[in-house]
Amino acid sequence: MRLEGVRALVFDVFGTVVDWRSGVARDAAIFLREHGEGNVDPVTFSDAWRRRYWPSMEEVRGGRRPFTRLDVLHRESLEAVLVEFGIDPASVPSSALDELNLAWHRLDPWPDAIAGIARLRTGYIVAPLSNGNIILMLDIAKRAGIAWDAILGAEVVQAYKPAPESYLRTAEVLAMRPSELCLVAAHNSDLAAARACGLRTAFVARPTEHGPGQTTDLRPEQGWDLVADNLTALAATLGL
Amino acid sequence: MRLEGVRALVFDVFGTVVDWRSGVARDAAIFLREHGEGNVDPVTFSDAWRRRYWPSMEEVRGGRRPFTRLDVLHRESLEAVLVEFGIDPASVPSSALDELNLAWHRLDPWPDAIAGIARLRTGYIVAPLSNGNIILMLDIAKRAGIAWDAILGAEVVQAYKPAPESYLRTAEVLAMRPSELCLVAAHNSDLAAARACGLRTAFVARPTEHGPGQTTDLRPEQGWDLVADNLTALAATLGL
Repeated sequence: MRLEGVRALVFDVFGTVVDWRSGVARDAAIFLREHGEGNVDPVTFSDAWRRRYWPSMEEVRGGRRPFTRLDVLHRESLEAVLVEFGIDPASVPSSALDELNLAWHRLDPWPDAIAGIARLRTGYIVAPLSNGNIILMLDIAKRAGIAWDAILGAEVVQAYKPAPESYLRTAEVLAMRPSELCLVAAHNSDLAAARACGLRTAFVARPTEHGPGQTTDLRPEQGWDLVADNLTALAATLGL
Repeated sequence: MRLEGVRALVFDVFGTVVDWRSGVARDAAIFLREHGEGNVDPVTFSDAWRRRYWPSMEEVRGGRRPFTRLDVLHRESLEAVLVEFGIDPASVPSSALDELNLAWHRLDPWPDAIAGIARLRTGYIVAPLSNGNIILMLDIAKRAGIAWDAILGAEVVQAYKPAPESYLRTAEVLAMRPSELCLVAAHNSDLAAARACGLRTAFVARPTEHGPGQTTDLRPEQGWDLVADNLTALAATLGL
């Protein structure tokens, strides 16, 4: 099976390629041992930090704030989430907050991701189309050994998903029609927004992104062009 | 020897990493056999096309034209250079012009470039900082097997070298101070502009970029931080 006419696979990253929850919790545990009251669960902390992710981009998406990269938004959200857990950010050295913010640069890929992307790369241009900024994506990839052809995404096109511009300008940068791109994502809403812009769509299930009790995105909610259990399975589906 | 504090090597590409003159001439020869009068030398043609490269960016650098990617400027220059050689662009199918314009996407690296960049990548972030646009750089790299960590450059920062913004915004995207970047280039003027912005500098000699009679950039014209005969030699100098 081939995706007729598709030349580039663009990937959601947080949740689809990397396991943000375990990675952030790992670094949060170290931070909380030193700066917390000893009663904050690192996984709960990382879920709370992530909950601020979507709202943090809303000012930019709504045009009320100039494009601001995700590292900056993550850092702002971190201060807010510390307050939420009873920690005064002013009581923590700013270098310790900067260091914790880099937890997002040290996320591990899901077990199939490195090999899957390497195989997909033999047949397609592969690049992240993430809301993460360039150095964030670069650090993750270099640490983990993920081989992308380029790092695309929100910072390159100065627009956050799911704004149509994020998908359409990415196609323009690649000098392709939207239908020559396929978004690979574990989130039905991302795929729906991409499809509305004319991109092709591949759903990869990540049923434990939010932990064992996950209730969302357990299965495809529309008839996406492709559905696969993971990225090596996606490569196999595409005959690679 | 190490470059103290440097974390990213950013590369000029046309002339430094790839041999644009032979590559463009190779595709021009095919085009000219079909559409020329039989009396145009492909190498002369490719030199004439390249001569329009610098002026083509001036309108953008001067702020009189919004940022326009190099593929578009190359295409405009192509029509002008055809006229210069007595070929009416309107007499040629536009698809043939588009195809010739892609000659820039199919340039071969210098013999040392793939291995040199691969070695440099083990110690540093490596990325192009070229005036070439993203898909142009991506196509060259994918065809040749050059492994970059990201594709940076004019299109990402919406500024053409040697404008200071091209270097400074690249540092900003990498979340680094300018002194944490080293520009690797075969052109003294590019290095001088980068140094003026605080970047470190590495000169790599490419004495046949303009053919056997080359008179420019045969040697370093300032005391650059590093000087090497080629990219594998640069890797060796850096202990990689």
